[in-house]
Amino acid sequence: MALNILLKLEKDLQKFPGIGQRLARKLAIYLLTRDKEENIKFIEDLKEIETKIFRCKECFALIESGKICGFCSNPYRENRILVLQNIEDYLLLSENKIFEGYYHILNGLISPLRGITPDMLSIDKLIDRIEKRKIVEIIFALPGTNDGIITTLYIKNQLKEKFPNLIFSKIAEGIPYGSGISEISIQTILTSLKNRENIQ
Amino acid sequence: MALNILLKLEKDLQKFPGIGQRLARKLAIYLLTRDKEENIKFIEDLKEIETKIFRCKECFALIESGKICGFCSNPYRENRILVLQNIEDYLLLSENKIFEGYYHILNGLISPLRGITPDMLSIDKLIDRIEKRKIVEIIFALPGTNDGIITTLYIKNQLKEKFPNLIFSKIAEGIPYGSGISEISIQTILTSLKNRENIQ
Amino acid sequence: MALNILLKLEKDLQKFPGIGQRLARKLAIYLLTRDKEENIKFIEDLKEIETKIFRCKECFALIESGKICGFCSNPYRENRILVLQNIEDYLLLSENKIFEGYYHILNGLISPLRGITPDMLSIDKLIDRIEKRKIVEIIFALPGTNDGIITTLYIKNQLKEKFPNLIFSKIAEGIPYGSGISEISIQTILTSLKNRENIQ
Amino acid sequence: MALNILLKLEKDLQKFPGIGQRLARKLAIYLLTRDKEENIKFIEDLKEIETKIFRCKECFALIESGKICGFCSNPYRENRILVLQNIEDYLLLSENKIFEGYYHILNGLISPLRGITPDMLSIDKLIDRIEKRKIVEIIFALPGTNDGIITTLYIKNQLKEKFPNLIFSKIAEGIPYGSGISEISIQTILTSLKNRENIQ
Repeated sequence: MALNILLKLEKDLQKFPGIGQRLARKLAIYLLTRDKEENIKFIEDLKEIETKIFRCKECFALIESGKICGFCSNPYRENRILVLQNIEDYLLLSENKIFEGYYHILNGLISPLRGITPDMLSIDKLIDRIEKRKIVEIIFALPGTNDGIITTLYIKNQLKEKFPNLIFSKIAEGIPYGSGISEISIQTILTSLKNRENIQ
Repeated sequence: MALNILLKLEKDLQKFPGIGQRLARKLAIYLLTRDKEENIKFIEDLKEIETKIFRCKECFALIESGKICGFCSNPYRENRILVLQNIEDYLLLSENKIFEGYYHILNGLISPLRGITPDMLSIDKLIDRIEKRKIVEIIFALPGTNDGIITTLYIKNQLKEKFPNLIFSKIAEGIPYGSGISEISIQTILTSLKNRENIQ
Repeated sequence: MALNILLKLEKDLQKFPGIGQRLARKLAIYLLTRDKEENIKFIEDLKEIETKIFRCKECFALIESGKICGFCSNPYRENRILVLQNIEDYLLLSENKIFEGYYHILNGLISPLRGITPDMLSIDKLIDRIEKRKIVEIIFALPGTNDGIITTLYIKNQLKEKFPNLIFSKIAEGIPYGSGISEISIQTILTSLKNRENIQ
Repeated sequence: MALNILLKLEKDLQKFPGIGQRLARKLAIYLLTRDKEENIKFIEDLKEIETKIFRCKECFALIESGKICGFCSNPYRENRILVLQNIEDYLLLSENKIFEGYYHILNGLISPLRGITPDMLSIDKLIDRIEKRKIVEIIFALPGTNDGIITTLYIKNQLKEKFPNLIFSKIAEGIPYGSGISEISIQTILTSLKNRENIQ
């Protein structure tokens, strides 16, 4: 007695990140059988996404009103830009207030294997912001994967031509706080040895 | 820059079975940033639950139209009832067509620890069905946990008074197909030894 | 500076069940660097295996002295034999005293895929014991895998010809104590429904 | 029928790192039942540890002959010392040839909680080597845990008094190669941002 609506919900839920076939079935049954009020509330929250959520015209962060976010509308922040891959990384860093400059969300990484080309990312917008904000440094905080490295190099090369005095940097590779040596790849150990810091 | 709608979605999603804090955050961001069309489609499917999904008035299975399900509207099935805990178990068994009688979904298990009492389950409806359908056997397929055992015994005792000729049975305890002896609890080994089957 | 002895120990330890390459390295370093007394004690215990451990001539259990084990030297146990795959299963069952008859350890399972033939198991010895002990029932407690099923059928057919009045049984297949329905394969649910037990 | 020797082996094996009660039982049965030749070979290898394995008098690496290891007997290596916690880390680094100087194994970390005091480590020997080898830099490659940090600071302070011109450094903290931002603690992200490297 397979139900159409059960199959449709399972299909919807299997698109979600981290949800496989088994969990999708469990969640679909949960949605089908829980209190009506809970689903009404959930639908209301989903509807709000369309009406109340926008992307900042500068950095592509999520905002609930206006055209630019709180950071981008503040002219007194440091004139550096921290380049991030996605909203998830942005939320983690901005919530923890670890940076005094501006953020820029790329909305992905260049990936030859997955067919993601530079024009699919927010690189043009980044170029606009450098001039406008008199930016002196671009800091890349992209993942240390092949796609992350390719994206860092591509953007750096593009910008270097246009802004020869701009400083480019990337967050340090090394041993994460709390890790033992033998949990880390040899490549990272080698880098962390080469880039060792003096202790006073 | 925490967003209200992000926090609301995270809260919604943390109620879902099998979704913890980290995954709820990831899913909330996914819902906030994916294509508008995907959310509209998902909202439509969620709305259908309220308008197109009902519970069978007899066995409590999910149905998409009418008042009783395909099994319960068929008078030619065997006059036995298989008692199940929830929709999930029902879907697994009914999809695999392993039973020729009627199903009955309790909507939970009696649980002194979690404060679930017999009146919160569909036991009254089960009693109605026995008379109406001339049922000869009640088969319990409840989990072999304390709550499952308590529920089996409670319902059996209730029914035995009313229907002294009714047969009561429960699915066999034993070693699951494919398991080795040392993966199974001593209690199950003891039962499976006591209930050993002859081989011809 | 790879050490010969480190490599030799790693190779030894990788043969142990459940020990992979990484753990073998960790254990080898542990053995190389721990207190001398601990290794001397461990070597003594390993040496004892050769001088103090024998197999029972009847059931193949491990014994520390004599030729037959405590069970096999007791003529008053029930005249049934429980057939087991290996020492591990034997220890689990005999320590928990769940059976009043005699045990028989096959030392493996017939396995066409892995090239294990009936003559590699202790089947001849089992035949001897049936006559000698006036055994009335052979109970198979082998795993519910293909190899387990093949072994059960082969031995039953062999014995049936020689001892037409012998009863053959196997421990019940079913849902293990504590499991929910949806954790179990459909095949086991089907068997446990077919073999359901009456409740009084 | 619990066997003394089985219990003794289980007790021996439970001391091994990464081996719990269940695996200890499995391994003990394996040792009790496998071919005699395999145990004889294993005992021979264990005996070799006592007769053929020594610690280098300088750096405490494992060696198979002589008094000092191949690195310490080579006067042409760089006059820097890489300080490591244990043999495991030493083997990983030395096998991968990522360092041109000398190694020094501390044989543990200072740990107030576990009662490990500086005199239990090979710090005195390290002091001797600095003078003798005309060492110019001490590089700490200890884990980034509290114990690792305490040990680094304690040794640095001890040595700084004795050798005011010695350079002290530690391997860089940061994001390991291949990791995404959201897999790393905020503390490490903060450090990796502060210590960001210029890209040319």
